[in-house]
Amino acid sequence: MLKRLKPDNNFKKDKVDPDLTKALPASRKIYIKSKRFDDVSVPMREIKLNDASTPSLIVYDTSGKFTDENYEHDLKIGLPKVRQEWVLKQTNIENKQRTKLKYLKPSNNLGEKFLNKPQKIFCAKKGTEITQMYFAKQGIITREMEYCAIRENEGRENYLGKEFKKNDLVTPEFVRNEIANGRAIIPSNINHSELEPMIIGKNFLVKINANIGNSAVWSSTKEEVEKLIWATRWGSDTVMDLSTGKNIHNMREWIIRNSPVPIGTVPIYQALEKVDGIAEELTWDVFKETLIEQAEQGVDYFTIHAGVKLKYIPLTTDRITGIVSRGGSIIAKWCLAHHKENFLYTHFEEMCELLKSYDISYSLGDGLRPGSIKDANDNAQFAELKTLGELTKFAWKKNIQVMIEGPGHVPMHLIKDNMNKQEQYCDDAPFYTLGPLTTDIAPGYDHITSAIGAAMIGWFGTSMLCYVTPKEHLGLPNKNDVRIGVITYKIAAHAADLAKNNKGAYHRDNLLSKARFEFRWIDQFNLSLDPETAMEFHDQTLPAEGAKVAHFCSMCGPKFCSMKISHEIKSETKKGLKNMSEKFKKLGSELYIKKT
Amino acid sequence: MLKRLKPDNNFKKDKVDPDLTKALPASRKIYIKSKRFDDVSVPMREIKLNDASTPSLIVYDTSGKFTDENYEHDLKIGLPKVRQEWVLKQTNIENKQRTKLKYLKPSNNLGEKFLNKPQKIFCAKKGTEITQMYFAKQGIITREMEYCAIRENEGRENYLGKEFKKNDLVTPEFVRNEIANGRAIIPSNINHSELEPMIIGKNFLVKINANIGNSAVWSSTKEEVEKLIWATRWGSDTVMDLSTGKNIHNMREWIIRNSPVPIGTVPIYQALEKVDGIAEELTWDVFKETLIEQAEQGVDYFTIHAGVKLKYIPLTTDRITGIVSRGGSIIAKWCLAHHKENFLYTHFEEMCELLKSYDISYSLGDGLRPGSIKDANDNAQFAELKTLGELTKFAWKKNIQVMIEGPGHVPMHLIKDNMNKQEQYCDDAPFYTLGPLTTDIAPGYDHITSAIGAAMIGWFGTSMLCYVTPKEHLGLPNKNDVRIGVITYKIAAHAADLAKNNKGAYHRDNLLSKARFEFRWIDQFNLSLDPETAMEFHDQTLPAEGAKVAHFCSMCGPKFCSMKISHEIKSETKKGLKNMSEKFKKLGSELYIKKT
Repeated sequence: MLKRLKPDNNFKKDKVDPDLTKALPASRKIYIKSKRFDDVSVPMREIKLNDASTPSLIVYDTSGKFTDENYEHDLKIGLPKVRQEWVLKQTNIENKQRTKLKYLKPSNNLGEKFLNKPQKIFCAKKGTEITQMYFAKQGIITREMEYCAIRENEGRENYLGKEFKKNDLVTPEFVRNEIANGRAIIPSNINHSELEPMIIGKNFLVKINANIGNSAVWSSTKEEVEKLIWATRWGSDTVMDLSTGKNIHNMREWIIRNSPVPIGTVPIYQALEKVDGIAEELTWDVFKETLIEQAEQGVDYFTIHAGVKLKYIPLTTDRITGIVSRGGSIIAKWCLAHHKENFLYTHFEEMCELLKSYDISYSLGDGLRPGSIKDANDNAQFAELKTLGELTKFAWKKNIQVMIEGPGHVPMHLIKDNMNKQEQYCDDAPFYTLGPLTTDIAPGYDHITSAIGAAMIGWFGTSMLCYVTPKEHLGLPNKNDVRIGVITYKIAAHAADLAKNNKGAYHRDNLLSKARFEFRWIDQFNLSLDPETAMEFHDQTLPAEGAKVAHFCSMCGPKFCSMKISHEIKSETKKGLKNMSEKFKKLGSELYIKKT
Repeated sequence: MLKRLKPDNNFKKDKVDPDLTKALPASRKIYIKSKRFDDVSVPMREIKLNDASTPSLIVYDTSGKFTDENYEHDLKIGLPKVRQEWVLKQTNIENKQRTKLKYLKPSNNLGEKFLNKPQKIFCAKKGTEITQMYFAKQGIITREMEYCAIRENEGRENYLGKEFKKNDLVTPEFVRNEIANGRAIIPSNINHSELEPMIIGKNFLVKINANIGNSAVWSSTKEEVEKLIWATRWGSDTVMDLSTGKNIHNMREWIIRNSPVPIGTVPIYQALEKVDGIAEELTWDVFKETLIEQAEQGVDYFTIHAGVKLKYIPLTTDRITGIVSRGGSIIAKWCLAHHKENFLYTHFEEMCELLKSYDISYSLGDGLRPGSIKDANDNAQFAELKTLGELTKFAWKKNIQVMIEGPGHVPMHLIKDNMNKQEQYCDDAPFYTLGPLTTDIAPGYDHITSAIGAAMIGWFGTSMLCYVTPKEHLGLPNKNDVRIGVITYKIAAHAADLAKNNKGAYHRDNLLSKARFEFRWIDQFNLSLDPETAMEFHDQTLPAEGAKVAHFCSMCGPKFCSMKISHEIKSETKKGLKNMSEKFKKLGSELYIKKT
């Protein structure tokens, strides 16, 4: 048998592997205090530069408390519940008992239990509203909105009055307005007290998501919790737990309690476990229980494949790769077996009532996304997208935050059409895409085939990019794959931010390039997305410490260093050669071409 | 001192490392015979599939004789001089003596000499024309054009009459016409007898170039020759030898004699060596001698920075990163030191006379390309590009083939403008770009930051993409970096081919995705750009041989396999559920949303 479910590690070591939590070079965690709320202070990363004339750069920091040098983490206790105080201040929220689960059998509830004392569980008081969208529409700025506004001003704090003016700043009011009209979401289940809120929307920094989670054949709980911490260390803005094994409930508890970023799930995976993997035996009741179970744990957004309607399924039969979404294929099978409409679609209203009690966001899944270049932008895909648009508007009426998932595999020339249709059908709800991969022929390199598409669609307006690791199509990512996937997607997201003319994004490129031009090697490394790798690659050719202050490098050696020569040119030109060149121009610089 | 020039390996082993030359899995070299020329047969790679109903796929093959199982290579003898016969049949070509070099001092002519007997040297008879462009304008189809036409039909041979029709084929006449009007070039110095001709132009497959070459501080001859073979094995269409050390002449001889792909150089690097690295001491005479020396060796295209005019240099002084082209900075320094116009510009006509005698192509260098996101698309860059356009038209009058080099570092939203201006200023001469990198902040991952830009500009019309390796900005690439760089750029080029609707390109994606959907794991690996890596990654999670015939994989396990479910859906749907679904649609599939 291929199955080799490993026994869980038993978390004997309470502490986290220091490799996962040590600060990045020249970096320290700082906190920017809100002026509006006493109990809101936003962690950022300060990067110190080796140049007296340049202030430190303060960048967005997804890594949570872990990288705070004054903080020691215990996996069994989880992160501090900073947000619980905020929740407790809300009069519309009440404590509730954990729901007793009928369908969660002992046989699909293996794995080590999270060891901290039972969590308090919150939900909205009956008949009241508590979602960020509700408050936004009421004109109320929440702590979460304030928090996000501060974070989005990455790169500006120490440069205000220099590179940046007051009106270059993202304001809480702007955040509120974007939430109110559905263009952005703050996925933030009131039961995820460990959360550092973040915002997803086209008028904010482009975000990335990392998928983790075990499958029936691989991985253990501790490995997955470590992947979570590792992914956020390198910059993942949200994490999806896509586990499909037997220890899925406990796995998720460990993950949420240790996560500073929003956690998303695909609840149908667990629902399917509860019916022993037989899609036909799924029922709304099993599914609903699963939603409640996960809502109480604190999942921030749910992928719901409510757009896979029965009539769309035949549209996929002539495809090269059929239905490639796991959730989509499960639903399709159920629909066909029962000759019935998708129960997620028919119970959408009930689902809304449930989600809004916890402020869980919808991530409306694209169950019919293309799984190959040939299948891109076909009728099945766009028919579903249209339905997702209808569902979006329905959810908005209930003040539920919504984002829309997107493909998949799409050749470059068809990417823009995806974005346009999504904006049109879904009224500018945030788009959250997987890649898209721009060719099928490079398994082993699909982080790259997809980063091309991700950067482009990010530029066109996609709000969050779901990473793809080198293992896509081949196996489950290990720690190193997660790092490569996250950095690759930080590149795509940042390239998109630049293309969208985000001033803060430009600023970091300029600082790094200036450091490069001035041979400040260490600053160049430290300003980069992965300082350790940059330094390591440099040292492979020139390991001597002296090389890191040298005014040249191994690529060209001293004689051929264009940057060195450029400095000479710069100083010479400033000596007045500009005039000489003007004079020369009049004399004869055109003399050659003209005579031919 | 940082300098650590290694002693040359002495090539005691005549044979090539089998790792560099063994055939890729399930692949063999085949030869497609021309119907027009008895002495032309074009090597291609045939990939056998494990599916009786699907013919083998025949793909473009850049790897040369090395991967022919019936061929044994001796580095000291070099590749067979197949093309010499073709050259000897041309009545306008004559044998010449090797020019005696005045400026090549023993001190800058180190390294091991190439050991085969002295090469025959050819050039055009005085007063006659021999370039591909000349023949094309005369309406003559050369062997080189025929060769390129056959290669460009990658993927079609075994599918003619099925996926492809006769009029899907690239014809020699089409090739001729593209060469005649300057939209494409076949870089093919008549002294590069080992060459397997290839074509660079926007209406052909997008090509990639790999840079190799030592610098004063690193690498030896044998390592570089091995990198050449390695780069072409993975798909590099041309190779540039950017060596700047003391053994540059002999290094180049080893490279050209062992190269099946066009070799490009930047002659000013060697010219600078001849004047001991002092830019101010460069003269036209030194440079001209270097051109002749390299022309006689067989270099196929020269990067010439003739567009760096004196008056443009002051335009670079306010940049963040000044001039980042090595050649550009050397020329700029020379111009300023002498207060004179660029001697490459003022001697352009004489240079043309020289190049046309060997059919060497110009690669007009962008000496003022931006080296950072901030400097992209500035006046300096576009002023130079305009001049390159003027020089192009001048060279065309002399029937010299020309391509134009492009940036560099460009954020996504400014890439299209580069392509448009290049097309406009240079009348559709092939564009050959370095990346461009779409952000500066990821040293260590610049193969990815640049693959995004490369894929996009390839789609927009760039004909050849110069690869960037993970070591860019940090050090010189080793063998593994070369592989990653080449595969990454094959991805970018192929994604561009798809976006340009190249039917042959689509075909390979479709075959691979079909194999994926049918759980033909081995075919999926073998059809990919890097079968070895794909297989290795798969086996990291599921090493058992049985897993490669399993109808699921480690990502999802058997229960969650969307593809497995899709097959079930497909067969169920075909049993007539399409009708059921239609019926259902009438009954109530809309019932939910409508009532809200």
